[in-house]
Amino acid sequence: MKSTVKEIAEGVKARLVGDGTVALSGIASIESACAGDLVFVENEKHLRQALESAASAVMAGEFAAGQAASKPLLICSQPRLAFARAAKVLCAGSLGEAGVHPSAVVHPSARLGKEVRVEASVVIAEGAAIGDRTRVSAGTVIGFDVSIGNDCYLYPNVTIYAGARIGARVIIHAGAVLGSDGFGYVRDRATERYEKFPQVGRLEIGDTTVDRGALDVTRIGRGTKLDNLVHIGHNCQLGENVIIAAQTGLSGSIVLEDNVVLGGQVGIGEHARIEEGVMLGGQGGVLPHKVLRGKGVAFWGTPAKPVREYLRELAALARLARKG
Amino acid sequence: MKSTVKEIAEGVKARLVGDGTVALSGIASIESACAGDLVFVENEKHLRQALESAASAVMAGEFAAGQAASKPLLICSQPRLAFARAAKVLCAGSLGEAGVHPSAVVHPSARLGKEVRVEASVVIAEGAAIGDRTRVSAGTVIGFDVSIGNDCYLYPNVTIYAGARIGARVIIHAGAVLGSDGFGYVRDRATERYEKFPQVGRLEIGDTTVDRGALDVTRIGRGTKLDNLVHIGHNCQLGENVIIAAQTGLSGSIVLEDNVVLGGQVGIGEHARIEEGVMLGGQGGVLPHKVLRGKGVAFWGTPAKPVREYLRELAALARLARKG
Amino acid sequence: MKSTVKEIAEGVKARLVGDGTVALSGIASIESACAGDLVFVENEKHLRQALESAASAVMAGEFAAGQAASKPLLICSQPRLAFARAAKVLCAGSLGEAGVHPSAVVHPSARLGKEVRVEASVVIAEGAAIGDRTRVSAGTVIGFDVSIGNDCYLYPNVTIYAGARIGARVIIHAGAVLGSDGFGYVRDRATERYEKFPQVGRLEIGDTTVDRGALDVTRIGRGTKLDNLVHIGHNCQLGENVIIAAQTGLSGSIVLEDNVVLGGQVGIGEHARIEEGVMLGGQGGVLPHKVLRGKGVAFWGTPAKPVREYLRELAALARLARKG
Repeated sequence: MKSTVKEIAEGVKARLVGDGTVALSGIASIESACAGDLVFVENEKHLRQALESAASAVMAGEFAAGQAASKPLLICSQPRLAFARAAKVLCAGSLGEAGVHPSAVVHPSARLGKEVRVEASVVIAEGAAIGDRTRVSAGTVIGFDVSIGNDCYLYPNVTIYAGARIGARVIIHAGAVLGSDGFGYVRDRATERYEKFPQVGRLEIGDTTVDRGALDVTRIGRGTKLDNLVHIGHNCQLGENVIIAAQTGLSGSIVLEDNVVLGGQVGIGEHARIEEGVMLGGQGGVLPHKVLRGKGVAFWGTPAKPVREYLRELAALARLARKG
Repeated sequence: MKSTVKEIAEGVKARLVGDGTVALSGIASIESACAGDLVFVENEKHLRQALESAASAVMAGEFAAGQAASKPLLICSQPRLAFARAAKVLCAGSLGEAGVHPSAVVHPSARLGKEVRVEASVVIAEGAAIGDRTRVSAGTVIGFDVSIGNDCYLYPNVTIYAGARIGARVIIHAGAVLGSDGFGYVRDRATERYEKFPQVGRLEIGDTTVDRGALDVTRIGRGTKLDNLVHIGHNCQLGENVIIAAQTGLSGSIVLEDNVVLGGQVGIGEHARIEEGVMLGGQGGVLPHKVLRGKGVAFWGTPAKPVREYLRELAALARLARKG
Repeated sequence: MKSTVKEIAEGVKARLVGDGTVALSGIASIESACAGDLVFVENEKHLRQALESAASAVMAGEFAAGQAASKPLLICSQPRLAFARAAKVLCAGSLGEAGVHPSAVVHPSARLGKEVRVEASVVIAEGAAIGDRTRVSAGTVIGFDVSIGNDCYLYPNVTIYAGARIGARVIIHAGAVLGSDGFGYVRDRATERYEKFPQVGRLEIGDTTVDRGALDVTRIGRGTKLDNLVHIGHNCQLGENVIIAAQTGLSGSIVLEDNVVLGGQVGIGEHARIEEGVMLGGQGGVLPHKVLRGKGVAFWGTPAKPVREYLRELAALARLARKG
């Protein structure tokens, strides 16, 4: 969507230096910018490069305030954040027209909100409810009695199991599976065979492979982001603004408090608790029932320990091996 | 499905103490139980809490036999197992009506058994055969010449590649991919480029991402359970009652004997053999061609070793690091 | 497809010893071969077993040249490679008839090449372009403005996000998701909440879960093979003939040069560079911004180091633990 430098500056509360009538139509990195693009710089050393690029305007920190500039500057305290917000305006795509595609199969009892878009080959089961302005992309299947809030965006080929509750403004990427049965089995001591343990809990909100709770409810808090191929087991409770990178797995009944950050390929055993603000590095592992605590403390390794301790161990081992 | 306490007790062979006419309509955890729910307790310390809950009946071990109880008790030697079996009755959902949805595309040569349910947007290719009472959920695609047994449940958006053989009572969760080409390449020494090695083997039974065998058949035994995002390479042979937790990966030509248990994020190299009853902890790694043996022996770490040995190493390293 | 031994020998440039008129109709392993099958042997010790099998002909190395043989021999310097090429002829399935299934939904502005096959329930969005002879299998969804080259094969239930560019002869397996948004967030220091960082770059070529670039373009070179459940983050650049085994994850802005080989479950931190021809063993981990170099050098462990060094450390630790 086209905009002027002045409109963008006002929208993101940046201070404008230069010509506010310059037109913007997109965003880019400094290397790939064309005319019409907005770029951003976070520190002084990249400012010159930005100014010499083909971009039409530069978002920058206070360091740029006194500089002679050949382009309009948008000055603010968090240029990366302001740039992200400007992008929301400049890159806003059309969500497509509202309506239900004739090839979609929507059960007569399903309730669709206002301006919902249901694309081709979508299937919406009995009793499901879809909130206003939510988009359900092609090939997505929504199970019995699922409820989805307003302004959600479901990409293609998503599957949502029966009974899941999805809040508002949730984005669910292509191929994600939400609310499937937890992986719970009980062994018959007589026959030594496993039987399925009932999984009748219910998922509330989320955006990747998430098991339905085993008996109890699985909850995922507001603002939490789950990357590709993440596995969340049954009964887990995730707080707000939790970040989980790709391929990380949580077994059952785990608590992640607010603002926890997990790197990629992390594995966490059942009933573990990761307290507020803990960071755990990639491939780290946490044993069942373990508690990690310390706001802003970084952990690493398997079993996970404070990163300084872990690095000390790595160094000691390298020394030992060198000695032979 | 509604039932009485007496019917459930008889069905799971539990001893009834108290009023058998009480109606049951579901199961729950002690914390979330409502009237009509059955709950269970495995040890004495939770019995009181169960009796004070809103549940209508309690499944419990022999320890509860002599206790004064305000609710009907169902006493048996394996209460968790009996509870799981009771749940099968109380939570039995309708599988939906049999029939083929008009939007499904079923090749005229495909054979469907009795009371099969084929949902919207399903595609069933030439020569496929689907057993009696099997349910094929929306968006699932079944390839050329696939055979699926009786009483299977395929959730939405599953893909089954050509030629796979799926037994009876197999559950395949949403988004699973079965029988895809193995990952086999051969390098041309002259051009240094890779060419695809033929993958014409065939998958027999399974329930997650499973590669089709490279030349030979991939087999997965009865009662084996594979969690989310598991990868099984070509030519693997899995025994009966094997349990594999989420995100574990097996490369090609691996043998897992009966009753093997693998934790999450385990990785196993090609041609390794894990013998009967071995347990391998989460994130453990097994080198190619390696053999792990010992019924009931737990292994951990990469390369995997008996867990006691592994813990001794962790402790020795921690001591060494403290010494500096 | 049926062929004679002579035709196959000529096609793969093998030297024929014996009766060239023998008919071949498939390939097999020595253990499972039937009449009509071609098998191969790479060393002398399996030759006898191959000759005694039910196969109709044997592909073998020069070691077989002087041997008395009861079956036709196809002799060449790289029998595994020649066998793979023979398989392409003998196992060539029909790609199915060209045409658009009536249940597919193709936007009027989409351009389809010659002899394209679009199966049931496929959705192709506005502005997409599909090359000649490309097959789009059932349930696949192709986004706005995607371009796909000639002779590609998309298996069922694939999703390709808007704007991706896929080259020629690319194979995309079932359930793969290409070009989805990168996982990029920026934290507002004032509110301590995360906001989405714009992801407007574009994917070029690839065949598994591949994030769309964050601002810049993600490129995957010719001949590169990605196994199941691989995650490639935004802005990664993969060279030619790179091999990545299952469940490996790359975070953002990583460079893998030509001929890199990554084992399964490897994790690589952002901005790392793996130089030409490096091999990294399964479950290995590379820290952000790290560089691994050495053509043909094998690395292992987390953090990854040359395999000899790593094995020395494992041995030193085992000795230390034994001492107590």
